[in-house]
Amino acid sequence: MPDQEFIEGEGWDVFEYTADFRVGGREFSRFAFRGGPEIYNETVYHDIVPNERMIFSYGMGIGDRPFSASLATIELATVNGGTRLTYTEQGAYLGGADDIAGREEGCRDLFEKLALDLASH
Amino acid sequence: MPDQEFIEGEGWDVFEYTADFRVGGREFSRFAFRGGPEIYNETVYHDIVPNERMIFSYGMGIGDRPFSASLATIELATVNGGTRLTYTEQGAYLGGADDIAGREEGCRDLFEKLALDLASH
Repeated sequence: MPDQEFIEGEGWDVFEYTADFRVGGREFSRFAFRGGPEIYNETVYHDIVPNERMIFSYGMGIGDRPFSASLATIELATVNGGTRLTYTEQGAYLGGADDIAGREEGCRDLFEKLALDLASH
Repeated sequence: MPDQEFIEGEGWDVFEYTADFRVGGREFSRFAFRGGPEIYNETVYHDIVPNERMIFSYGMGIGDRPFSASLATIELATVNGGTRLTYTEQGAYLGGADDIAGREEGCRDLFEKLALDLASH
């Protein structure tokens, strides 16, 4: 699971992490990166179809100030004997364009780590 | 509040409605239209700034089968002594294009009712 990768990333301190992985279930975490401010992530799972897709929304903020809310879909397809994962995020980013570039980079980084991890098994 | 309008609409039966209107708070409802199938709406409020904006995400489904997940923003601005409300919805609609047209019509209808209600006070 991506979250597993996420909470174990180097330089991240995780203060709280709960996940109820089912449709309508919630995930909540609080963490910081290299001693930075505390960030929260509040996720709700809207749809889970094993080996096919997942839809979830999540809000993030620093302290109790929201800085983004997103709707994310993950689609899985078998391609040439492997699995293609397509991640799509739609969002409202209160910090504007810089936030969007940073989010794309952050998501890409997480999925690259996930791919490396899967390839190692 | 739009939800107030919604749950009181003619032809709608509401079986459950709870709302915890604060950032991170949840709203949940189950309802049916003119004896149709039971629909649920599961909402999370991501950002609330009085007189300025509201960001929330919501999933909807029939029975326990999701049919859509959306990220919605409401922006309020003072224009010519009145208030302009801008509603933006980004979403994943599992039924495709028909769902999108229906959603737009449904949202428009709700906001028109809200406008009529506000004008009557």
